[in-house]
Amino acid sequence: MFDILLSTQSEQPMYIQLYRQMRDQIRNGGISPGTRLPSVRSVQLQMNISKTPIETAYQMLLAEGYVHSKPRSGLYVIDPHTDKPASPAHPDHVRAFSAMHPTRAEPVPQKVAVDFDPSAVDESLFPLRIWRKMLHEALDSHAGVCRYGDAQGEYSLRLVLAEYLKNSRGVNCSPEQIVVGSGISYSIDVLSKLLSGRQTIGFEEPGFAPVREQFKHNGFQVIPIPVTDKGLSLDELEKSDANAVYVTPSHQFPLGPVMPYAERERLLAWARARRAYVLEDDYDGEFRYFGKPISSLQGIDRDGRVIYIGTFSKAFTPALRLNYMVLPVELAEKMQRMPYLLNSPSRIDQWAMQAFFEQGHWYRHIRRMRNAYRKKHQRFVEQLQLHFGERIEITGHSAGLHLLVTIRTDRCSRTLLELASQQGVRVYDFSQMWMETPRTPRYPQLYLGFGGTSERDIELGVKLLQKAWHEILV
Amino acid sequence: MFDILLSTQSEQPMYIQLYRQMRDQIRNGGISPGTRLPSVRSVQLQMNISKTPIETAYQMLLAEGYVHSKPRSGLYVIDPHTDKPASPAHPDHVRAFSAMHPTRAEPVPQKVAVDFDPSAVDESLFPLRIWRKMLHEALDSHAGVCRYGDAQGEYSLRLVLAEYLKNSRGVNCSPEQIVVGSGISYSIDVLSKLLSGRQTIGFEEPGFAPVREQFKHNGFQVIPIPVTDKGLSLDELEKSDANAVYVTPSHQFPLGPVMPYAERERLLAWARARRAYVLEDDYDGEFRYFGKPISSLQGIDRDGRVIYIGTFSKAFTPALRLNYMVLPVELAEKMQRMPYLLNSPSRIDQWAMQAFFEQGHWYRHIRRMRNAYRKKHQRFVEQLQLHFGERIEITGHSAGLHLLVTIRTDRCSRTLLELASQQGVRVYDFSQMWMETPRTPRYPQLYLGFGGTSERDIELGVKLLQKAWHEILV
Repeated sequence: MFDILLSTQSEQPMYIQLYRQMRDQIRNGGISPGTRLPSVRSVQLQMNISKTPIETAYQMLLAEGYVHSKPRSGLYVIDPHTDKPASPAHPDHVRAFSAMHPTRAEPVPQKVAVDFDPSAVDESLFPLRIWRKMLHEALDSHAGVCRYGDAQGEYSLRLVLAEYLKNSRGVNCSPEQIVVGSGISYSIDVLSKLLSGRQTIGFEEPGFAPVREQFKHNGFQVIPIPVTDKGLSLDELEKSDANAVYVTPSHQFPLGPVMPYAERERLLAWARARRAYVLEDDYDGEFRYFGKPISSLQGIDRDGRVIYIGTFSKAFTPALRLNYMVLPVELAEKMQRMPYLLNSPSRIDQWAMQAFFEQGHWYRHIRRMRNAYRKKHQRFVEQLQLHFGERIEITGHSAGLHLLVTIRTDRCSRTLLELASQQGVRVYDFSQMWMETPRTPRYPQLYLGFGGTSERDIELGVKLLQKAWHEILV
Repeated sequence: MFDILLSTQSEQPMYIQLYRQMRDQIRNGGISPGTRLPSVRSVQLQMNISKTPIETAYQMLLAEGYVHSKPRSGLYVIDPHTDKPASPAHPDHVRAFSAMHPTRAEPVPQKVAVDFDPSAVDESLFPLRIWRKMLHEALDSHAGVCRYGDAQGEYSLRLVLAEYLKNSRGVNCSPEQIVVGSGISYSIDVLSKLLSGRQTIGFEEPGFAPVREQFKHNGFQVIPIPVTDKGLSLDELEKSDANAVYVTPSHQFPLGPVMPYAERERLLAWARARRAYVLEDDYDGEFRYFGKPISSLQGIDRDGRVIYIGTFSKAFTPALRLNYMVLPVELAEKMQRMPYLLNSPSRIDQWAMQAFFEQGHWYRHIRRMRNAYRKKHQRFVEQLQLHFGERIEITGHSAGLHLLVTIRTDRCSRTLLELASQQGVRVYDFSQMWMETPRTPRYPQLYLGFGGTSERDIELGVKLLQKAWHEILV
């Protein structure tokens, strides 16, 4: 057993003390590589504390790659020289959510067999070989590998992006309007500065919490605007004092509706009348399974009121940290006078992405991903219907990488999460997506991602969910 | 029936042509609200095309809300209750804007034969082959190429950085205090938010203008503090109202002095007494040609008042957009509660950099660069002395990638720049580095970078400068 001293006097919670001491001992060699960690039970007996902090500390060590797990054996201290470092398990926004809601201690699931993580994408189809080639070519064929690039993004990449966005999303723009960035939080920061001065922004309720929190932090007043089955409620928006609005019209996050044409025209008319900006987040516009992709709002805007944001995180990989924003001409001109706002990502990555487009790989990749996701999506819906029939309702499921599921039960979503977790399945509710007290629908709603889950795991996961929930369904 | 022209010559697929033409006619009123669309069958007969493109186009119109479906009746054009729409999009604006920015190239003087750009680094020594290998290994050996990384930076990279900073710069920190970012402007933004609330920051005068502008834009009050031959003037700082300060103590930018030990202690005492933060920008700490590298201010701070910022831009390449910041524990803990502030760069690049360190390449690279820069530096000083003798004075030249040169002439620095440019040499003054009216030294000062200039070009450049200026020297 290890030398662990826990203090009940400490301000640090038990699990943090445990985690830090074990981590430090692993790092300084006090616990040697290859050592099997004592079981939770034995630590519990020795220390006379409850199981939860021990399990949590172990989970943290596992997530950070200090130990690895051998099935039916236990946790072993990693050998940094021979073992591959395990990668931390938490996507950053999931972490962001738990950190934003510290009181909602996340139940640490026993062992996650199936994770319906809505932010995951399919890793097995990542074009590793081709991307490696693109990086090669980028390094070999470009002068300037030691020079600063254009802070707005490489012009050559913006050129291919303008073309792509026109063809695939109906976006009308010149490369001068495009700002290449390292993720939506970068885009929101640039935008917050461009729109400086007190702004009041209407925000979908429920909506994408990280962006909402960022706007608040940047000094915006955020007004929650309810989402109906036609997307953001125009009635409510018109009644509000908002002079800007954030929307996900192609596939509302998290509820899923598509904003119909009439609403779009009405939204644009509102923006024109108020001289307001509409921030269109087209986070998963590439993936639509019924009908054809829906054109962007930006494409039908005639007054330069729409700011369009797209990303490579869903369609390619979030690990690359590459996205783009299309500014109306007026804002693009303002930005030219504030160059210190900008800070582009690696120009090597940008060159690689440019080549990926120019050589047609992007289109092939998207087609491949769309087919794969369509299949998973179909399988998921079919399995849910098979095992749950009328007792669940699936909505907002024509696009993207997650399903919204309403479950007919008297229990709350928290209970559903816990029951699922006991079966080794991780599902997600979206209570944190609400700014104000959630409107209580009759039945709890969960959102289930399938992007990073294999068809086999989808099948298994749904079966386990049926097992977890069958007794509480009505 | 409508006026639809389909072209088999067009690059656009049939369904796109159909969809676009119908959509535009709906939007411009060519097809009136309430009109029933002709059946698929009748369009098929009229146009003599297959059913699929027609069905697809109809589906798109339906999905986007241009038409609605009446059961057992057909599709009807919607009435959007808006002004009569004119022609789509804003191509005129786009054109006008592109015309304003016809090329990205900056107006370049005559022809630049030699550019003494102070921000350039040596491209010929970039370890292209090894970096390619590191990228390979990063892609091959890490799980999670499709997952979000840690928004604070990959833990494994922070681990090697903490070790490196300790050894090479005397920085004391744990990986938990390190924030990996995409450049100093990212670090300054994160910091501005962490130090939120009205802050008054002392700033070296002259100093690094981009950071100064960013602080101003982020709502800080900036107080210029004169630089003496001992760096930032402590006398002036102590008299000011500043509750934070930005310094480049290892090699003041742009004037070059090193802050001596006694001043450092005095600066830290000031910070302790005021509970002020000291922002230490160690932008080129790796390159020192005389004496030992000077250790960081952070390393002698015992009160957690120093924020340390370093970069890979000088020692490796600015194209990669990778830097790091070390926060005092107090600020690092505050940051944990505001995770939405953070947005790390590509995790693939981070893994590659980690491997670059772990395999010893970084140390070899730095040694190699230091030798190369030392040689160039020596050659530069020697050539300037050879051609200008007593008529110039070189200062601040014990470190970094540029020289500060005072030229004995009655003309202003602008004239010197113009004369140099006529000979095809680009040199830089630093008038923009002053916040207030520059203190007028007796003779104009220029700063000449040598990082990106070959020894041959240094020789040539100095000769050309001599030719350009010899008539106006006193």
